[in-house]
Amino acid sequence: MTKKSTHTVWHHASISRSDRESLHNHKSAILWFTGLSGSGKSTLAHAVEKYLHKIGVSTYVLDGDNVRHGLCSDLGFTDSDRAENIRRIGELAKLMTDAGIITLTAFISPFMSDRDTARKLVPDGDFLEIYCLCPIETCEQRDVKGLYKKARAGEIPLFTGIDSPYQAPEKPELTVNTQEQSLSASVEHVIKLLVQRGLIDDVRS
Amino acid sequence: MTKKSTHTVWHHASISRSDRESLHNHKSAILWFTGLSGSGKSTLAHAVEKYLHKIGVSTYVLDGDNVRHGLCSDLGFTDSDRAENIRRIGELAKLMTDAGIITLTAFISPFMSDRDTARKLVPDGDFLEIYCLCPIETCEQRDVKGLYKKARAGEIPLFTGIDSPYQAPEKPELTVNTQEQSLSASVEHVIKLLVQRGLIDDVRS
Repeated sequence: MTKKSTHTVWHHASISRSDRESLHNHKSAILWFTGLSGSGKSTLAHAVEKYLHKIGVSTYVLDGDNVRHGLCSDLGFTDSDRAENIRRIGELAKLMTDAGIITLTAFISPFMSDRDTARKLVPDGDFLEIYCLCPIETCEQRDVKGLYKKARAGEIPLFTGIDSPYQAPEKPELTVNTQEQSLSASVEHVIKLLVQRGLIDDVRS
Repeated sequence: MTKKSTHTVWHHASISRSDRESLHNHKSAILWFTGLSGSGKSTLAHAVEKYLHKIGVSTYVLDGDNVRHGLCSDLGFTDSDRAENIRRIGELAKLMTDAGIITLTAFISPFMSDRDTARKLVPDGDFLEIYCLCPIETCEQRDVKGLYKKARAGEIPLFTGIDSPYQAPEKPELTVNTQEQSLSASVEHVIKLLVQRGLIDDVRS
């Protein structure tokens, strides 16, 4: 091949999100879980992922475990760092969605404005806000990671629900009462939402 | 279900990278394309993606188009901002690889230390450095985006190859001579590498 023809053929050949969704045989979207520490966001997100994976859906869960020590390792917990944290997670989830993956994010994401920033990054309908509703008393009683105890002892400043506010979603796509509902019932509610939105087929039909 | 039993069943059920690779029916990895502006990184990455997509491989290309205006929109082009840019791209590619995707990154990534930082984020063998080798004279002659002209006119400071160095890889997994080779031959070399590494099956066999 001559140099000239090399020049002419070196153009972009782009695979689109819809190509990737076709390959994966389902639509992609962001499932944005929000709620207090201990409200069950991460557990629910992972359980939903397990369900989806079993029916052949490409998934990924973003949570503190894989984001805070990596992509956002330079950020702390001030309001501005929290905002930047959520901004990056939103951008990351946007790229994963573009990659044809159902992306589940499990972060407290206490501020409405930050969640709305993430929502606005993607087309309408691609961002499903799932509110893990649980009274702080129950979260504190569970205290799986011992964080409430530390926060009460003054060892963790700006802890959501203690000395930093949690702004509950006003119009989430779904509210899951994680105190009242079992995990399997909660998973079922999320899956039902995905079927209703046409993201996945109804495997029960 | 009682509150007590709710507590006991709310545990993590994690899907692993290897589960996702099984679902996608191929291994995941990072193909890190590096080279001067105009050396053909992005074009080659997109052409490789097109080839892979056609044979059913889950892929995603990270390049200036989808990263600089989003995840890294807060960064400029100083050495430290460039380093942070590459760090975030490395972390992003790591997460995408964990999601079971063959992730192709197409950034100049001129500094050896930054590329090595990205390499060290993932297990041995997951990071394949692909050097798009092309003399700067040819890149400047192509000047697809008109950037060299602007850099020569002093409108773009710290332009790689003009007033900022490009440190060529010493031991890349693959060198593609984009001046001498056609695009299709270059794609074939990359695919051959992926087959050799056991990431994808040899579709020709």
